[in-house]
Amino acid sequence: MKKQINIERLKNTINKSAEIGKIPGNGLRRLALTDEDKAMRDLFLSWMQEANLETRIDDLGNMYGRREGKEDLSPIVIGSHLDTQPNGGRFDGILGVLSALEVIQTLNDYNVETLRPIEIINFTNEEGARFEPPMIASGGLSGNFEKEYIYNLTDQEGNRFEDELTRIGYKGKMKNRIQNIHSYLELHIEQGPILENEAMDIGIVEGIQGMEWMEVKVKGESSHAGSTPMHLRKDALTVSAKMINIIEDLAIEHGVVATVGRLSLEPNATNSVPGEVIFSLDVRHFEDNKRKNVINKMKQKIVEIASYYKLEVEIQCLWEVPAVEFNSNIINLIEETAKSNDYSIQRLPSGAGHDAKYMQDIAPSGMIFVPSVDGKSHIESELTLDKDIEQGANVLYQVTEYLARFEYSIQ
Amino acid sequence: MKKQINIERLKNTINKSAEIGKIPGNGLRRLALTDEDKAMRDLFLSWMQEANLETRIDDLGNMYGRREGKEDLSPIVIGSHLDTQPNGGRFDGILGVLSALEVIQTLNDYNVETLRPIEIINFTNEEGARFEPPMIASGGLSGNFEKEYIYNLTDQEGNRFEDELTRIGYKGKMKNRIQNIHSYLELHIEQGPILENEAMDIGIVEGIQGMEWMEVKVKGESSHAGSTPMHLRKDALTVSAKMINIIEDLAIEHGVVATVGRLSLEPNATNSVPGEVIFSLDVRHFEDNKRKNVINKMKQKIVEIASYYKLEVEIQCLWEVPAVEFNSNIINLIEETAKSNDYSIQRLPSGAGHDAKYMQDIAPSGMIFVPSVDGKSHIESELTLDKDIEQGANVLYQVTEYLARFEYSIQ
Repeated sequence: MKKQINIERLKNTINKSAEIGKIPGNGLRRLALTDEDKAMRDLFLSWMQEANLETRIDDLGNMYGRREGKEDLSPIVIGSHLDTQPNGGRFDGILGVLSALEVIQTLNDYNVETLRPIEIINFTNEEGARFEPPMIASGGLSGNFEKEYIYNLTDQEGNRFEDELTRIGYKGKMKNRIQNIHSYLELHIEQGPILENEAMDIGIVEGIQGMEWMEVKVKGESSHAGSTPMHLRKDALTVSAKMINIIEDLAIEHGVVATVGRLSLEPNATNSVPGEVIFSLDVRHFEDNKRKNVINKMKQKIVEIASYYKLEVEIQCLWEVPAVEFNSNIINLIEETAKSNDYSIQRLPSGAGHDAKYMQDIAPSGMIFVPSVDGKSHIESELTLDKDIEQGANVLYQVTEYLARFEYSIQ
Repeated sequence: MKKQINIERLKNTINKSAEIGKIPGNGLRRLALTDEDKAMRDLFLSWMQEANLETRIDDLGNMYGRREGKEDLSPIVIGSHLDTQPNGGRFDGILGVLSALEVIQTLNDYNVETLRPIEIINFTNEEGARFEPPMIASGGLSGNFEKEYIYNLTDQEGNRFEDELTRIGYKGKMKNRIQNIHSYLELHIEQGPILENEAMDIGIVEGIQGMEWMEVKVKGESSHAGSTPMHLRKDALTVSAKMINIIEDLAIEHGVVATVGRLSLEPNATNSVPGEVIFSLDVRHFEDNKRKNVINKMKQKIVEIASYYKLEVEIQCLWEVPAVEFNSNIINLIEETAKSNDYSIQRLPSGAGHDAKYMQDIAPSGMIFVPSVDGKSHIESELTLDKDIEQGANVLYQVTEYLARFEYSIQ
């Protein structure tokens, strides 16, 4: 029988993580670079040290723990992120980091010596819920974002990324960034309903859909709610509501996913007609051209609606990433490993973005999905069953150990 | 020629007020019981003392300045409020308070002795922009709100009204509340386009439309923006957008004014489908029955939409006030006084609520309107021309002096 991870130990670390930033309904609010994030990082650092890992922090706040191999070769890297959404769950990202730690502990249990080093990683601000865009630190590592750009990002209160990184004590050195990666693996919850609906154990992730984040600013005119007749208003909210409805209609018609997830208005007072609305727009699809075409249709409609009601509108692209395909050798290896445990498998694409998306730019990468109960994620009630956690972590362990055995590189 | 106020002095006090809580675009952000409100109150208190008024503060933070009459009779009360909207202008409320001070200064200039005392007043939290509902302290004075209810109101950060009142040093004694008022007069900007469109100098306000404030809570389910297919979403924002559009349609169809001015969503993150939206709804009309009928239709549609999309909805009434008619003798007196100055006049109703609404419950009351440029209000660019300020303040002065001369009460 193949080596197995220790599910009780892994459940224990997940439960301890679930105490830091806890919110009602079993959820977590652990936004990047907050006091809660710092508390979790401190705990994770102590765990890595207890597992005899050599730890370091890079200039983007990414945390590494290294287990040496017999040879000075490029390492196998495994991990994910410990930050959450404002009303997030206990598994998104966290499972990938704590399973990576569990892989190390299991190697230690069995006194396994590997040829290649293994590094586990916690990426900073994957969620992008506090500092947009998401996956900022893996994107920094892969060269997709400049350090200055990342440092000058601000949250909604105007706090700078660099200042907050320094404040919580996790600004390390640029030379600590990992380089020359043999391969990158990430275990993650599916965050969608497919594996559960098909009653499958393990999802073999083929790639990640492309996405674009936009910000739409609708400028009307604030006026008094009691003394301004309906026909003389320039209400930025009623006009934005029409835009939001059209965006939804176009998404359904063309088979993309589109979300207005963030919205703010000015002056935001009960007896004032809203003068300005700013809302985000997130559009995703597996075919980049199709996504771009639908976004163009949406933009056209948004401009038409604003013009019809004589309001001004600005649409700004905040972030765009093309669709990505993971390394086919890694995909095949994950699939064979899962099958060899008699786990049922399904190949599927990822609807959500992940750090593995940027890691694929600099190293052969792959992802393992485990089922999400009711497909729920980014919500307090997010849940993955113990048996699925165990099976997913076993696949991660076995693939990592296998890759670390050999000298050759993956193409 | 009738006595005239000193427009240069009045412009000067208005300009000094416009420095406290100043925001870009000539606007003011001077929310009730903030540091800015305190700074303005301190300045106004010193002005009242310089004008030889006897000052006092009541338990709701209302500020009074009393000029004695020859007899111990009930006073003529004039005033309004010094707090503003989050993005408010320099005139709303402020004109009424500072013109009241100007009335006193003009009486002092001419050494006028009146039979009745005159009191000027600054009401706390008229706007309701920080502590809902609005007109809270005039409503407290008139017995429409209990002291405990007012004290326990909280702002969006959870700060209590009483605590903030104490913090800024303006919690006075209940025995300082004014009682036995002969009559109440309030000069105010129109906040709408009627006087300007008709090229009229002075608006004679017949009454104030009735209004209801509601809060609508739409509960869907938050989920991941990338991995949740459109048909499996329970998006609280797209459904709220449909409600906002129907509210607007019904308002236009039935001739009421309806405003969704405040809206918040959870988790408010770009890559999360909104799980919950809370929005305000303000509906007003001069006929109470008509208002109630339209609100019922709106509620019915809101519930239908929620039910169709399988979301939950709660609608809560926060505040309701019936329409009010001002005292006809006061209305006639204002009209005759304006005409005697050769000012053109127009009788009109008020679309906005005012402290005079509650004062009419306890004393014969009336309001004088002056034109708003482009009908704008609750916005930084709110403007009333100097000549209109002068004419409005002259009418306020002359009506006040006239009423203070006589012993008989107004019915």
